[in-house]
Formats: sequence, C-alpha cells, structure tokens
Amino acid sequence: MIKTADHLYLQVAENIEQLIEKEVMKMGEKLPSVRMLSKQQGISLSTAFQAYYHLEGKGLIESRPKSGYYIRYNMRRMPAMPSTCQPVKKASEVTVSDMVMEVFRHMSNDSILKFSVATPPVEILPAAKMAKAVVHALRELPAGGIGYEELQGNALLRGQIARMSLSWGCAATADEVVTTNGCMDALTLCLSATTQPGDTIAIESPAYYGALQLAESMGLKVLEVPTHPVTGVDLDYLDKAIPKHKIKACLFVTNFNNPLGSCMPDNNKKELVAMMEKYDIALIEDDIYGDLYFGKQRPASCKTFDKNGHVLLCNSFSKSLAPGYRVGWTMPGKYKEKVLRMKQNHSIACGSLAHAAIGHFLEIGRYEFHLRNLRKTLHTQSLRYAQAISEYFPESACVTRPQGGCVLWVELDDSINTFDLFQQALKNKISFCPGRIFSLQNRYNNCLRISYGNPWSKQVDDGLKTLGKLIRKMS
Amino acid sequence: MIKTADHLYLQVAENIEQLIEKEVMKMGEKLPSVRMLSKQQGISLSTAFQAYYHLEGKGLIESRPKSGYYIRYNMRRMPAMPSTCQPVKKASEVTVSDMVMEVFRHMSNDSILKFSVATPPVEILPAAKMAKAVVHALRELPAGGIGYEELQGNALLRGQIARMSLSWGCAATADEVVTTNGCMDALTLCLSATTQPGDTIAIESPAYYGALQLAESMGLKVLEVPTHPVTGVDLDYLDKAIPKHKIKACLFVTNFNNPLGSCMPDNNKKELVAMMEKYDIALIEDDIYGDLYFGKQRPASCKTFDKNGHVLLCNSFSKSLAPGYRVGWTMPGKYKEKVLRMKQNHSIACGSLAHAAIGHFLEIGRYEFHLRNLRKTLHTQSLRYAQAISEYFPESACVTRPQGGCVLWVELDDSINTFDLFQQALKNKISFCPGRIFSLQNRYNNCLRISYGNPWSKQVDDGLKTLGKLIRKMS
Repeated sequence: MIKTADHLYLQVAENIEQLIEKEVMKMGEKLPSVRMLSKQQGISLSTAFQAYYHLEGKGLIESRPKSGYYIRYNMRRMPAMPSTCQPVKKASEVTVSDMVMEVFRHMSNDSILKFSVATPPVEILPAAKMAKAVVHALRELPAGGIGYEELQGNALLRGQIARMSLSWGCAATADEVVTTNGCMDALTLCLSATTQPGDTIAIESPAYYGALQLAESMGLKVLEVPTHPVTGVDLDYLDKAIPKHKIKACLFVTNFNNPLGSCMPDNNKKELVAMMEKYDIALIEDDIYGDLYFGKQRPASCKTFDKNGHVLLCNSFSKSLAPGYRVGWTMPGKYKEKVLRMKQNHSIACGSLAHAAIGHFLEIGRYEFHLRNLRKTLHTQSLRYAQAISEYFPESACVTRPQGGCVLWVELDDSINTFDLFQQALKNKISFCPGRIFSLQNRYNNCLRISYGNPWSKQVDDGLKTLGKLIRKMS
Repeated sequence: MIKTADHLYLQVAENIEQLIEKEVMKMGEKLPSVRMLSKQQGISLSTAFQAYYHLEGKGLIESRPKSGYYIRYNMRRMPAMPSTCQPVKKASEVTVSDMVMEVFRHMSNDSILKFSVATPPVEILPAAKMAKAVVHALRELPAGGIGYEELQGNALLRGQIARMSLSWGCAATADEVVTTNGCMDALTLCLSATTQPGDTIAIESPAYYGALQLAESMGLKVLEVPTHPVTGVDLDYLDKAIPKHKIKACLFVTNFNNPLGSCMPDNNKKELVAMMEKYDIALIEDDIYGDLYFGKQRPASCKTFDKNGHVLLCNSFSKSLAPGYRVGWTMPGKYKEKVLRMKQNHSIACGSLAHAAIGHFLEIGRYEFHLRNLRKTLHTQSLRYAQAISEYFPESACVTRPQGGCVLWVELDDSINTFDLFQQALKNKISFCPGRIFSLQNRYNNCLRISYGNPWSKQVDDGLKTLGKLIRKMS
C-alpha cells in the first residue's frame, strides 16, 4: 500500500498521541521542535507541522509563542465519569415545563454565550450549498412546490434516506420512510400511533427534556430507566419494569444520547429489540445524533436488528445540516399505517421545498462530504471543551467522554444547585442546561449539560473559565 | 368621481344581472347583440364585449356559435338549500378515519378528476412570483435560514399578519401572533392548550373531517352542534349544550365553513363571543376561508369582538397561496403562553424559509393583488359548478350557495348512499367527499361535498355530467 502524505502525518500524530496516553510524554513537557521531528521521522517540515496542528486541534498539545509545542492533555487529569443514576422507581406525571421555558427564553439573544443548545451553530453548517439546493428544488418541483406533496413525503428524499440506511446496517426502501417536520414531529406522530393518553412509557434517565415535555403534553406517564453514561439503558431493570408498569412503548436515544452521550453496544441493541418482541411493545428509537460519531464507523441502530417491525426509527437533519428547515423522518415498521393517519390528522403534509432541497443535497453527495468535516470539527471541540472543564472546574467534577453527538454531561458536588448556577451564569451572559430539566423526579440538581457545538474561541474559553469560578464560589 | 372603462363594463354587466335575477330577462332568452348593446348604452364595442364576457364568466349567460348570447341562469332552476341538520344529541368518540383514508388514498393520482380537494389547484396560484419571494428570503435570512427561527415565529410574517388583521376589523400586533406549520398544526396546538384528553369539545355539524380526526387522535369527545347552511352554528342549542355537556372548547369555522359554506352574521359572532365569556371557555376559530369572500368586503371574525382573549383565531395560506409551504398561524389571545409551550414541545420551530418567503410576499403587496383575482375566479367557478349541478343532478338535489370558500354541499334523496356513489365515481376516475366523513354520527349518508377549485373545463363539465348520471342510476 502506498503511504500518502495524508497517512503520514496522521501516523506520526497517532504515535505521539499514544506516547501521551501511556504517559511516556507527560503533561507540560516540551515536544521536539518541528525541525527536529522532521529529521527524526524522515518527513517533510510541512508534514511535521500537519501532525502538530492535528494534535493541537484535538486539544492534546498547545503551542506557546516563541517556545514551541507542549503536552497539554493528561488522562489522569481527566475527571471521573459520572455515575449511573438510579432514579426512584415510581412512575409520575411530568412537570418540568416552567424551567425549560426559563432556560430557552433567551434563545434569540445573540449577546448570550449559549452552551445550552445541542445543535451545531450555523457557522459550521453549509449554508451557501444548501441555498443552491433550494434554488434547484424550486426549479425541479412542479409549480415550485406550492402544491401539497404526497402524504408519505417527498419521494426523492425518502429514496435517499433509504440509501443512507446502509450506513447503519439496514437495507430500507423508500416505501418504509415517512417524512416529518423535524424529529420532534416524528416522535409526536410515533407516540400518538403507539400509545393512548394515560399510558406509561419508558424513557432514559437523564433524558432529553423535549421528550419529557412531549410526554406531558400528550397525557402520558413516564418511567425513568437508569442509564449508564457509556452503555446506555439498564436492560435488566427494563426487563422487570415493562410488565410491572405496563409499559406501552419505550422512547430511547440509542446513539450518543442526550445528555449522557452513551452509545448502546450492538449486543445490547439486539437484546432490547428481542425484549420489545417478547412483550410486543414499540421502541421509538431517536437516532438524531447517530451520524455524528467520532469513531471509525457509524454505530448501528436497533432498527438494524428489527425483524418484526417493533422499532419506529426517528431522525432528522436538524443536528447535522439545517435545523431551521424542519426536515425529519421516521421508519415506523409495522406501525406505518397508523403513523400515516396521525400525519394526515396533525399536519396533512410537510414543507415541500425544504424537503426536496435536502433530498437533492443528499442525492449529489454533499451531505456525506459535509458530515466528514462536521464530525472532525465536533470531535476536536469535544476534546477542547472537556479539557477546559477539567482545568477550570473543581477537581471533584465528573464529566462524560462522548464518542459522538455534541454535549457533555457534568456532575458537580451534591451541594451545588445548577439552576442557581444557571441564574448566576445568565447574569454573566452565559447559558447552559441545568440537570434538573432532564428528569421529572427532582433529580440531577447538581448536574449540567454543556454543548460543545460552538467553535472554540477566546469567548468560549472565558465562558468556561467564568463558569468554573462561579462553581467554586458556590462550593 | 371619474368613471373608468373598468367601472363601465361592470356597471353594464351588473344591470343585466339584475334584470336576469328579477326575471325581466328569462332563461333561454336571446340578449341584444354586442353592436346593439354598444349603441343602447352608449359604450364602445370592446366595453360591450367585456360586459358579456364577465357575465359569461359568472355562468349567467352563454354564447351560441353564429347566434349570439343567451340567458343561461335562472334563480328558480337553482335547487333548494339543504336543511339545517339536527345531529343526535349524544356526545361520542370519533371513528371516521378509515373512510377518510379511503377517500384520500388516490390524492396523488393525476388521472383522477378531484372534486374532493377543498383547495384551489396550483394552476390558479402564483407559483412563479412565490418562487421569487423564496429566492429573496434565501438572500435576506441569516445563513439562508438554516438556523432555528425564534419560537414565536418569523417576525416579518407576524408583522404582516398583524397588518392584515385590519381587514377583519382587528388591530393586532405582531406579538399576538404565533406561527405554525399550516392551519392543522395551529388547531392541534390550540386544542392541546385548551383541553385535556377525555374533555368534550363542540364542533359544527356537518364539520370538516380533519377536525373530527384530530379530535379523535387527541382523545377528545365531540358534540356536534346543528349548523344552518347560511348563518352557521345554532347558538340557542349551543347555549344549552355547553353546561350540559361540560364543553371545554368550541372549534368552529365561522366564515364560509367547510362543508356547508355558512357565514355567521356579525351579531351571531358577537353573541358567540359573549357566550364564551359567560362560560369562560375557549373558542378556536378556524378562519381559513375568510379571505376567499365573494361579496364587497371581508367578513369579520369572532376575534374582532373578543375583548378578553377567549378566542384563538387560526388561519393559514394553504387555501389561498401555497398549500405545500405549510405556513399557518394563530392569535391565541389569553392562551398565548400555553400555545407557545405546546409549540416548543411539538415542533420547536417552523420552516424558516417558507415562512420568511410568504412574509416577503405579503410585504410587497403581492398577496392582496393575488387574492383579488383568486376571489373573482372562485366566484365565477362556484356559479358555473352550481349551475351544472342543477342541470345534471336530479331535481330533488339541494345545493348550497356559498358566498365564499371553495366547496358546495349537495343533499340528495335519502335513498342514495354517497359512499357507494363515491366508489362508482372512482371507477369513472372522479373523486369527491361523501357526506358521511363530515360527522361521527352515521349521518349525511345522502350528502356530498364538491370542491369548485378546479377551473371550469370540458373535463369538469363531463365529470359533473357523469356524477349526475350515476346518481340517477342509483335513484
């Protein structure tokens, strides 16, 4: 195999990374100069620079002016992982709505540094190329798309989603896909199709506040299932809880879940699907972060292992491409007819133009290309943010190390109330999500969710530093 | 005031119309030749032609080759109005979903002549100008609109809707408006904000099947209120029903209601609003056909008379501009905060681009201009369709004479089941809405709804002729 220059700099960088991880090279240590590295490794100066840039991008080393490169990262300095949280076992009605409205009241205030939004900001999304796709769709659609599209959704988009399904180990057809106005709309339709008001659903804990609010507004009860920060939902617990609480459906984010960042191993996914079959209940699988993986390949979905249509896979392009366009979809398995009826009842059709535009964007391969860059960017940012948190927050802080998605979950001393911290932070023009909104059980009051979507900058660095100071003051 | 040529031909046409209505000139009678008319009235030949074209367009006269113009329309020949239907008095669960899916299964089949769709077809909507507005919005929106818009919705659009509110006698501000993904989404959010599953709502009878389906999917019970084909909901009945059935909200289409076409007089609207205040319940007012009036001015809305915020006015641009763009809105009065929370729960935001584009379309005055033409077109078509139905359907058929909107409601002999007729018609590649779907009570089996959105053509004429034949065969 021919070693290209590309491979070369990565090879060198990886070797250095291993030396850092094994603490052969320690935090604060000076690295060889670029010239030295070039000589040592028999590589060009520019390749040596590239290797250091790469390590710097990942937050592992830093350059000091007129001095050179230094080791910045140390595994030991990384905070411990948060614990698997054991929620209380009673099912309960949801009541977190007020706090969420309070957190997101300031969403359109540009002067606030938002660690609260779990979506990459527009500056790292391909706005200009997307605009071209819209103009293309305007030309291609009959009458520029002003007429209703068919109930099931834009055929081009559904076909492209079916092709994408290969990347998570499915071989779906366009006919299995129903488009929706974003992922929340998909979750709404799927919950409507599989539950009745008064039913109980199982959900992760901590869980995305939007899912909790949705359940509340639909008159559903929620059982929170303990969730491990690396492997996801506790399946033993779930297996006992389903018959006990007469669970009608599960709503889980299986890949890089929000806020924990956990990613269920394939075996757990298989076991979960088997459990759905055993009890003949529905799994609504929200895979909205699945495309934002940092590893070598995309994780599978539960849908991958679903033989009998118990899984309603939901997703959208809001975390990766165009949040404002409201383009989502579901593969609802055996519940497809019911989901279509709910779509007919609630929305009749989706926005024709945006759906056609994203269909075209996928068709010409731009999405794959964009995702490759976005994943690198987010991976780098995740490391930078985690590193900064470990520097600025108290030693006792625990933080997740997600392998995808765009949020970190931080657990502080029990004495810290993060909703108080939120109000302090807001005075300093910083927002984040206090842990309390990720449960219905008055839990996670000492936790917070930090999104690393915003590109690293002095403002971000200062913001995290300020947060750290505020926490220390409250300790 | 200077009389322009425009005024002149309309004046002449109006005079002739009055003569026809008063039966001074009778059906089948020959009109003066164009030359004669020009001489009689002291107008130019071209103005005389224009007057006749106008009357022909309205279906009142017809030209016969090499002979001249003849009176086509006769009030006496118009069928009687349908009766005020008295639904049974018990509240019930909804179950019309199957039949609706059956009717709309063939929506995207272009070979079927669709009298079933209560929306003007794209060929009479301004596709090219709308496309320009989209391109403008792409340029104007930050990052082409790929980011989330604010929760309440696009500010330009909300401001324009507030300006439009003058036309129905309100003076709303942008801050009172919440945008939605079409009108069904607005109804969903408003129902969610004002009711709980298990509650009972009042609705017209017959009522838009979509509203019935929505109520079903939300676990609501429905009381059908008798509705007069001209004046709308029976307020005496409603006044007794509200306390008796513990009605939590009313959902009425007050202007050119679907399917009856009734338009509530202002005094009834005032009385209805007073009733909402008396019982402190919500009126969800669907005014989706309000802009499509055929008279001299737009009818008021109940919102016009709403002092205390009991009215949640809902509307969209789907019946008048761009159904596929899914742009709707609500002015939810005192329920605004609740509606915003429901929007946050169910959809987070609306489709940024389409909403901005329609905002711009309104801002530059194109919408008003387009509506003027659309109203004329639909008025003419309504008369043509009604005339054809009176010719082709059995004498016993009753038909509404709506003063706005785009549907006719036809009542046939009790012996005719219009769902059977629907299946016969479908074999002849014609679809319409059987009356049964407009109630939950196994009523209106002898009724049908015919949309006159499709421009008059030989195909339409033949289609109505075929329907008439099928009905006669079944009699």
